[in-house]
Amino acid sequence: MDYAIRERDADFLLKEVFDVQSSWAEIDEFSHLTPDLVGAVIAEGGRVAAEVMAPLNELGDEHGCQWHDGEVTTPPGFKEAFSQMTAGGWLGVSGNPAFGGQGLPKSIAGLVEEMFWAANTSLYLYGTLTVGTCLCIDAHGSLEQKQTYLEKLYSGQWTGAMALTEPHAGTDLGIMRTKAEPRPDGSYDVTGTKIFITSGEHDMAENIVHLTLARIAGGPAGSKGISLFIVPKFQPMADGSLGPRNGWRSGSIEHKMGVRGSATSVIHYDGAQGFLLGEAHQGLAAMFTMMNYERLSVGLQGLGAADLAYQAAARYAQERIQGRSPEGPQNPGAEADSLLVHPDVRRMLLTQRAHIDSCRALAVYAGMQLDLAKYAQDERADRLSQLLTPVVKAYLTDRGLECAVMAQQVLGGHGYIKEWGMEQIVRDARIGQIYEGTNGIQALDLVGRKVLRDGGRTLFELLDEIRETTVDDEFVSELDQACDRLEATTRSLLRRAQEQANLPGAVSTDYLELVGMTLCAWMWARMATLAPADDFGTVKRETARFYFARLLPRTLGLERSIMADASVVMDMPEALFTA
Amino acid sequence: MDYAIRERDADFLLKEVFDVQSSWAEIDEFSHLTPDLVGAVIAEGGRVAAEVMAPLNELGDEHGCQWHDGEVTTPPGFKEAFSQMTAGGWLGVSGNPAFGGQGLPKSIAGLVEEMFWAANTSLYLYGTLTVGTCLCIDAHGSLEQKQTYLEKLYSGQWTGAMALTEPHAGTDLGIMRTKAEPRPDGSYDVTGTKIFITSGEHDMAENIVHLTLARIAGGPAGSKGISLFIVPKFQPMADGSLGPRNGWRSGSIEHKMGVRGSATSVIHYDGAQGFLLGEAHQGLAAMFTMMNYERLSVGLQGLGAADLAYQAAARYAQERIQGRSPEGPQNPGAEADSLLVHPDVRRMLLTQRAHIDSCRALAVYAGMQLDLAKYAQDERADRLSQLLTPVVKAYLTDRGLECAVMAQQVLGGHGYIKEWGMEQIVRDARIGQIYEGTNGIQALDLVGRKVLRDGGRTLFELLDEIRETTVDDEFVSELDQACDRLEATTRSLLRRAQEQANLPGAVSTDYLELVGMTLCAWMWARMATLAPADDFGTVKRETARFYFARLLPRTLGLERSIMADASVVMDMPEALFTA
Repeated sequence: MDYAIRERDADFLLKEVFDVQSSWAEIDEFSHLTPDLVGAVIAEGGRVAAEVMAPLNELGDEHGCQWHDGEVTTPPGFKEAFSQMTAGGWLGVSGNPAFGGQGLPKSIAGLVEEMFWAANTSLYLYGTLTVGTCLCIDAHGSLEQKQTYLEKLYSGQWTGAMALTEPHAGTDLGIMRTKAEPRPDGSYDVTGTKIFITSGEHDMAENIVHLTLARIAGGPAGSKGISLFIVPKFQPMADGSLGPRNGWRSGSIEHKMGVRGSATSVIHYDGAQGFLLGEAHQGLAAMFTMMNYERLSVGLQGLGAADLAYQAAARYAQERIQGRSPEGPQNPGAEADSLLVHPDVRRMLLTQRAHIDSCRALAVYAGMQLDLAKYAQDERADRLSQLLTPVVKAYLTDRGLECAVMAQQVLGGHGYIKEWGMEQIVRDARIGQIYEGTNGIQALDLVGRKVLRDGGRTLFELLDEIRETTVDDEFVSELDQACDRLEATTRSLLRRAQEQANLPGAVSTDYLELVGMTLCAWMWARMATLAPADDFGTVKRETARFYFARLLPRTLGLERSIMADASVVMDMPEALFTA
Repeated sequence: MDYAIRERDADFLLKEVFDVQSSWAEIDEFSHLTPDLVGAVIAEGGRVAAEVMAPLNELGDEHGCQWHDGEVTTPPGFKEAFSQMTAGGWLGVSGNPAFGGQGLPKSIAGLVEEMFWAANTSLYLYGTLTVGTCLCIDAHGSLEQKQTYLEKLYSGQWTGAMALTEPHAGTDLGIMRTKAEPRPDGSYDVTGTKIFITSGEHDMAENIVHLTLARIAGGPAGSKGISLFIVPKFQPMADGSLGPRNGWRSGSIEHKMGVRGSATSVIHYDGAQGFLLGEAHQGLAAMFTMMNYERLSVGLQGLGAADLAYQAAARYAQERIQGRSPEGPQNPGAEADSLLVHPDVRRMLLTQRAHIDSCRALAVYAGMQLDLAKYAQDERADRLSQLLTPVVKAYLTDRGLECAVMAQQVLGGHGYIKEWGMEQIVRDARIGQIYEGTNGIQALDLVGRKVLRDGGRTLFELLDEIRETTVDDEFVSELDQACDRLEATTRSLLRRAQEQANLPGAVSTDYLELVGMTLCAWMWARMATLAPADDFGTVKRETARFYFARLLPRTLGLERSIMADASVVMDMPEALFTA
C-alpha cells in the first residue's frame, strides 16, 4: 500500500509551531542539530519505511509466524528487511551516543517511529521492543551491562524483549510468581512462565535479550518484591562471542487478530541464568522509567495506522466515481461524480485528518517535554511529560482504531476484503489499545497519579499555557470554553474524589478523552494560526474549522458524563453482570 | 463460546413493555398467538442457536470457504447444521403461510434472528439471504413464481441470494451494466458481472436462486431502467425436478476480514436465463420493498454480536481476579479481587448492556410497526417503520462494533488472541456497518427521505408519543430535554436544508446517532419504569440510570455538531484531500 511520508508536516511542526531549535539551543547534546540535518534524518527514515518495510506489510500478515519445537520462523523477507533497517542505525536514533546511539531528541525519533509503524507495524515491533530494552539498560544497568548489551542492541545484531505478563497476572503485576534464586556467582536462576512476550523468540537476530520481572526468593510480597533481570538467550562471553544457550524456551506462539508478522511467545524459564538490572526489589520502578518513552511510541503506532489508512481512503475517494452531488452533477461528462462530492464521505475523511494532524502535533509536543526533562533537567517539563504520556498512549491509539475503521468505511465492501489492505490496518491497530498498559490503565494513571496526586497543579499550569497562547480570533472563544470545561471538570473531580474512592476509575476514560480533545483543540488553533498562505495552510485552516465545529463538541457530553457520581457504575450488584 | 438466550428479556418486552398481545388481537393473522406459543418459539429457536449453530462458529472462521473451478465448499459441518436449522422451519418464521411459511410477526422473528446471528453469523447469512429472497418473491412474484420458489426456499431445500453490486457500481446502482435481452419465450438472457454476492454459490443446497438486477436492453438510462430477475442455478421443471444448469458461475470468492464461513462470490452471468420478477424497469423499487425487513435483520446482527461479546466479557470479569478495589481489598482471602471491583471495567460492561437492552427494545418496537403496517394497513405505522428502519440498521450495527470492541477490551491481551473468540466477534460484526447499504447511506435515507421529505411530520409524531409516555420521575426531565434537543435539531435542519443542498449529507450520520440515542433513552425509561421488583428489574433500573447519566450526554455534542453548516465539510478543495 502506498504511503506518503509527511515531511512538510514535520518541518512545519518543528519550525513554525514549536520552534524546537530554540529549545535545543539550550541543551548541549542538541546544540549541533540544524533543520537540515533533522530534515535529512526524517527523509531517510521515510525512505527506509517506504522502500524496505512497507513492501513486506501484507506478506507478513498473510504468512504470519511459524513455531516449531521452540523455534520461531518470521515471515519471508522480515530478517533481511530488519537487517537493512537496523544497519541504518534506526534503533539507536535516540540512543546513548556513548554506546553507539545517535542521541537525537525524542521529538525527532517520534516522527521517524510514526513512519515505521505506518509502514509495517509487525516488523517495527521487533525494533521498538529493542529500543525499550536499551532504554532500560541505559537507565539502570551497570557500566559493564551497558558495554555488553547496548551497542549490540542499537545495531540490531541482538534484539530485546520485555517479559512481564504471566497467565494470571497482566495488569496486576504484583501477583506474579516467576522466581529468582541467587546463585553463588551473584547471578540468579529464573524460573516461571511468561505470556504475551512480543519478540520473545524469533529468527531475526543472533541473540535475544529478555528483561524479565521476577521475585527474589525471600523478598517482600506484592509489587514491592519484584526485581528486573537481564536473561539473554545466549550468554555473552567476555570476548564478545556467544556462550551456551540459556535455560528458557518459547512454549508456543499466539494466533492473533493482527500484527501477525510479530511473534508473541509463551516463554518458559527453567532455571535460566539472569542478571539483576538495577536494584533488587525495584524492578517495577525500573521498568516504569522507560514506560514514558515506550508509551509515547505506542501512541505513535496508532497515529501511523491512522495516517496509512487515511491516505488510502483519500486516494480511493478521489478516484472512485459513484452517485451525484446533492447540488447536481459536478462531472456531467462522466457516469458519476467523485466520492468527494458527498458530504458524508468528506466528513469521514476530515474526521480522520483532524485527528491525525493534531495527534502528530501533540506527540511532538510530548516528545519535546521528554527531551527537556531528560537533557535540561526541566522539572516542569518532567511533570508535564508524565501527565501527557498516558494521554498520548491512549488517545492516539483510540483515534488510531477510530480512523482505521472510518477509512475502511470509505471503501465500502472493498474495505472489508483483504485485497485492499484496509482490514489489516484495523486488525493491526487494535492491539495498540491493549498492550503496554491497556487504555483503561492509562486513564487511571492520568487521573490518579498525574492529576489528583498533585492537586491538579500540572494540569492547571498546562491550561494556563493554553490560555496564554496567541491564536486566531475565530478560535479564541471555543478554545477558552474548552479550557473552562476541562478546568471545571478537574476541580469537581478533585473535590468529589475525596469522598468517592471509586470516582477516579469511574470517570477516568471519559476524562482522558476530554484532556486529549482539549489538547488537540489547542494544537489545531496553533497550527491554523501559523499556517502559511498556500495549499498546505488551507488544509490546516479548513481542518481546524472542522475540528472545532464537528469534533470538539464531543467534550460537552464528556463533561456532563464526568460530573456523574461513582454510584452510577458501582450500584449494580456484581452477580447481576452475568444475569 | 457459551451464549445464553434472553428469554426473560423477550418476555418482558413483549408483555410488559409493549403489550404486543393487544395489538395482535386486532390482526386476524395473529389473533391465535398466545404468550405461551411465542415463548415456545423463542425457546426452541434458542436451542437451535445454542446447540446447532454456535458449536460451528469458530470452526467456520478457521476453515473459511474454499473455491475450486467455480464450485464453493463451505466449512465442515455447515451443510448439516443448515439442514437441521432449516428443517425446523426457521427460514419461514415470518413467511407466507399460503406457501409454507409460519406467518409469525416480525417482532417475534426478530427476537429469533438475534439469537441466530449471535450464535453463528456466517451460517445465518445463508439463511437471511434466503429469507430476503422469499420476501421479494412473495411481494412481487406471480402466483406461479410463488408456487415454484417459496416452499423450497422456506424449507431451505433451495437458498436465495441478491445480486446487486457490480465492480464499478455499489451504492450507486443506477450506473450498473448487467444486461437482460428478451428471449422469445418471455424470459431473458442475463449477462454481466456482479460482485460481493453473499451465498451466491455454495454447497449447502441443491439449488441457488439469484435475484439479479439488470437493464432490459432499450430501457431508460439510470436507476429507472433497472429490472429484477429470478436467475436460478438450476431451472425448476414443471414436475418439481431440477432442469439444466443455468449460465452463471462463481468466478472467485472473497477473502474477508470476517464472516469467513460465509461465501461471498463474484458471479459471471453469461446469457443466463432469467425471469422478470415484478414489473419491467421497477427493479429497484421491488428490491427496496423488502429492504425494510432485511435492514432490520442486519441491525439484529449487530445486536447479536454485541450480546455474545458482552456475555463472554461479563463472565471473564466475574472469574478473573486482578488488582484490588479502590476502596481496599474486597476479597482479602484471595490473591486479588474480581475485575468487577474496578469502576472502569464496570463502565465498559454497563455501556455494552445499556446499548444491548435498549437496542433490543428498539428492534422489537420497529418490528411491531412493520407488522402493523403490513397486516393492519396502519398508515402511521408504515411511516414510522420507514423512519425507524435506517436507524435500527445503522445504530444497532454501530453499537455492535462498539460493544464487541469494548468487550474485547475487558479481556485485555486475551481479547486479542483467537483462542478466546472475542476477536472473531469484532471481525464478524464489522460487516454489518458496510453491507445492506452502508451506514452512511442509512443516515442519508433517514434525513432525506424519512425526515425532510415529510417536513418532519413522522418524527414529530414520534416525539409526541415519547413525551406522552408515563415514565418514572427520575427520568422525566432528562427524557424531555433529549426530546427537545432532537426537535430543535430537526427544526433547524428543516430550515437550513432549504438553502444548503449539502447540509443533510454533512450532518446525517450525527443526526442518525442522535435519533438512535434519544429512542434508546425512551426505551430505557419505559423498561426501568415497568421493571419488576427482583434481580431482573434491578438490572434494568441500574442500567437505565447508567444510560441517562453516562451515555445520553453524547447527544449534547451531537446537537452542537449538527448545528454546524455544510460549509464546514464542503470548503476543503477536492484536490487537497490527498495533499
